[in-house]
Amino acid sequence: METAENRRPKHRDAEATKARIFAAAAAEFAERGLAGARVDAIAKRAEANKQLIYAYFGGKEELFAAVVGRQLEELVEEVEIDPERFAEYAGRLFDWHAERPELVRLLLYEGLMYDTGSVPNDDARTAHSRDKVKAVRAQQKQGGMDATLDPRDLVMLVIALATATDAMPQLARMIEGGDPRAPRARARRRAAVVEIVRRAATPSSS
Amino acid sequence: METAENRRPKHRDAEATKARIFAAAAAEFAERGLAGARVDAIAKRAEANKQLIYAYFGGKEELFAAVVGRQLEELVEEVEIDPERFAEYAGRLFDWHAERPELVRLLLYEGLMYDTGSVPNDDARTAHSRDKVKAVRAQQKQGGMDATLDPRDLVMLVIALATATDAMPQLARMIEGGDPRAPRARARRRAAVVEIVRRAATPSSS
Repeated sequence: METAENRRPKHRDAEATKARIFAAAAAEFAERGLAGARVDAIAKRAEANKQLIYAYFGGKEELFAAVVGRQLEELVEEVEIDPERFAEYAGRLFDWHAERPELVRLLLYEGLMYDTGSVPNDDARTAHSRDKVKAVRAQQKQGGMDATLDPRDLVMLVIALATATDAMPQLARMIEGGDPRAPRARARRRAAVVEIVRRAATPSSS
Repeated sequence: METAENRRPKHRDAEATKARIFAAAAAEFAERGLAGARVDAIAKRAEANKQLIYAYFGGKEELFAAVVGRQLEELVEEVEIDPERFAEYAGRLFDWHAERPELVRLLLYEGLMYDTGSVPNDDARTAHSRDKVKAVRAQQKQGGMDATLDPRDLVMLVIALATATDAMPQLARMIEGGDPRAPRARARRRAAVVEIVRRAATPSSS
């Protein structure tokens, strides 16, 4: 019998299934973390076969790494680092994370699990980080950015500033005295992040 | 029979047991989080009776909150906010967390669990946060600190800067190209945090 299922090209099926697995895994991992998530639950959410997940990705750790890696690729593409307008870059980073809080949760769970140890897709991600540091260093050498701060500190601390609310939302709420993600609070926080980065990155006149 | 056990005053016994439970719970929660930790494991680690833990603290969530609350009390006592020397305060905050990375892990797990929802000891902690914000606002009014940034943003973002390495240790390592907690990297990061906060808090000359 010809069904809707077997009329679709196989390649497209596989891609669609993978996309469903990615979405389901991202949601499950963001909720429960690497330790708490279950591949069974991801398979159910994705309406996919559990064995297929193992066949495509290897195991739970590899799937977690693939999900984080894919979201980071999207982030790198959609929010290109711009050392010439570093403060505005911080603002765009802030906006991206605000719209997609899943990634911060994934990164927090990842950090809690691996600490400073290697992750399965470590090389590709470390290369991305190195590129960012290089871009900032080049801008410093051209005199377009304050050069007293190490580019590694600038790159890391901009991430910390841009993700602060979602990294410790309970503290953000206590300090705010209200919802730190309410539009007004968020807009004010964004402006503060941009301004702090602007002051940190502006070449000193001395 | 008179044993070593029943010669000790009861009150002191109870205090010693509570102290052991706090230490064991902090370690277990920092490792596994609120969801992953087991009261059984805490009891075993503390060499205490599981029923005693429930009697003293209520349940796992209350014990978690008590552990976080206690460490925050210690932090508040040992690193008093000093809006007159706000950059140096950021540096001392950085040092405290560097020496006691357990609390950042507890706060991350707490944020992942509760997000912006209430925690069991919410009122006391929110009051502490409000005090910090008030202290910064008073300093701004006196003209001793830049007043273009909201005190809530300053308080939150200083925490984000001071805890960046331990909040996302895997990113810190990738960006560093080495151990971000090595003495040299840590000293450089500390100086960068202090300098960024100094630039953020210095009253503008305009």
